[in-house]
Formats: sequence, C-alpha cells, structure tokens
Amino acid sequence: MIHINILYPNTPGSRFDMDYYLGTHMPMSKRLLGNACKHIGIERGVMGSEPGSPPIYIVSCHMQFESIDTFLAVWSVHGETLASDIPNYTDVQPVIQFSEPLPFA
Amino acid sequence: MIHINILYPNTPGSRFDMDYYLGTHMPMSKRLLGNACKHIGIERGVMGSEPGSPPIYIVSCHMQFESIDTFLAVWSVHGETLASDIPNYTDVQPVIQFSEPLPFA
Repeated sequence: MIHINILYPNTPGSRFDMDYYLGTHMPMSKRLLGNACKHIGIERGVMGSEPGSPPIYIVSCHMQFESIDTFLAVWSVHGETLASDIPNYTDVQPVIQFSEPLPFA
Repeated sequence: MIHINILYPNTPGSRFDMDYYLGTHMPMSKRLLGNACKHIGIERGVMGSEPGSPPIYIVSCHMQFESIDTFLAVWSVHGETLASDIPNYTDVQPVIQFSEPLPFA
C-alpha cells in the first residue's frame, strides 16, 4: 500500500475555494481515479502546536493506492485533467509526498 | 473528531532511530494516551512529487481523538513524558498540526 499526501500550505493571502474543492474537484478526483484509489481522506487545518497558532497546511488530502505503479497507471491517464483543475480552487502550490504505512507493536 | 499530525521534516544530516521510535516510543505513546486516542497511523516518507525526489517528511504520525479537549486532558498528564522522549530517537523538531476531517460527496 502507498499513501499519497497532498498538502496545501497555509500561505497568508492565498486563495482556497473550499466549496469548489469539496463539491467539484474531489468528486471528480474520486470518479477519475476510480477503483485504483482505495481510500480518500480530507482534513482542514485547525491550528498548529499551540492553541491559536495557525496551521501549517490549510487542507490535507490523503489517498491510498495498492502501489506506486497502480497510481502511476491511472495518473498517466487522468493526472493532467486533475492537475489543471487546481487553479480553479487555489493559487497555492501543494506539497506532494508518497509514504508507506508502518506497523508498530 | 480531531486529527493530530506529527510530521518529522526530512532534514539532511538529521538522526531518526526508527527502531526506537516504532519499538519503544510509539508503544509507550499508545499505552499512555489509552482509550482517549481512537486511532494511530504511522507513515515513512518514500519520495516527493517526482520519482527519486526526497520526501519532505521522513516520518508522519496521525492520531485521532474525539476532541481537542479530550486530547488536552490526557496530554496534560502524559505530554511531558512523551515530549521528553523525542530526543531519544531524533534531533529533528516535528511539525505539529491539528486538523478536522472534512466530508465530501
């Protein structure tokens, strides 16, 4: 299993249209990625480590795929459509990271 | 529900003892946080947005609590023990963010 984290920095003065993101972009993502994507989770940043401090990311999206190859196969078909939709809801450049889950006892 | 994300930056030259983290620190965290913590997920950074690029975080830990108050109640008792254990496995200062899950249709 591979996790893909798409993190939108909470840049002062930046734009993020949550209605478009949740109502249009993410449903389109879910539809185009299809069964290759095993799970999608979205979070809104509330605060940093101290009460009242700003969160470092305004939104985080976590997706799970069986493997990087599974992701690349579907991304090669639909990635351009999805990436080109980003300016419709934000002017922030997301941080993208691939991670693997680790068990612990 | 509130998510707490503890993100360890992948700083060049830094130290991260994965065996201690997975074998000692996280089991201690799970035990001390107890039933207040509804879920713990740990990820190891594999790569950034491009194949071969370094991940921005070497390790990410995601925990779920019913509320910030629930977290603060248990953290006020065990937080110092857990925070003071961090130098035993890393010299990196983690980024901490509180987030709330968002539904989408």
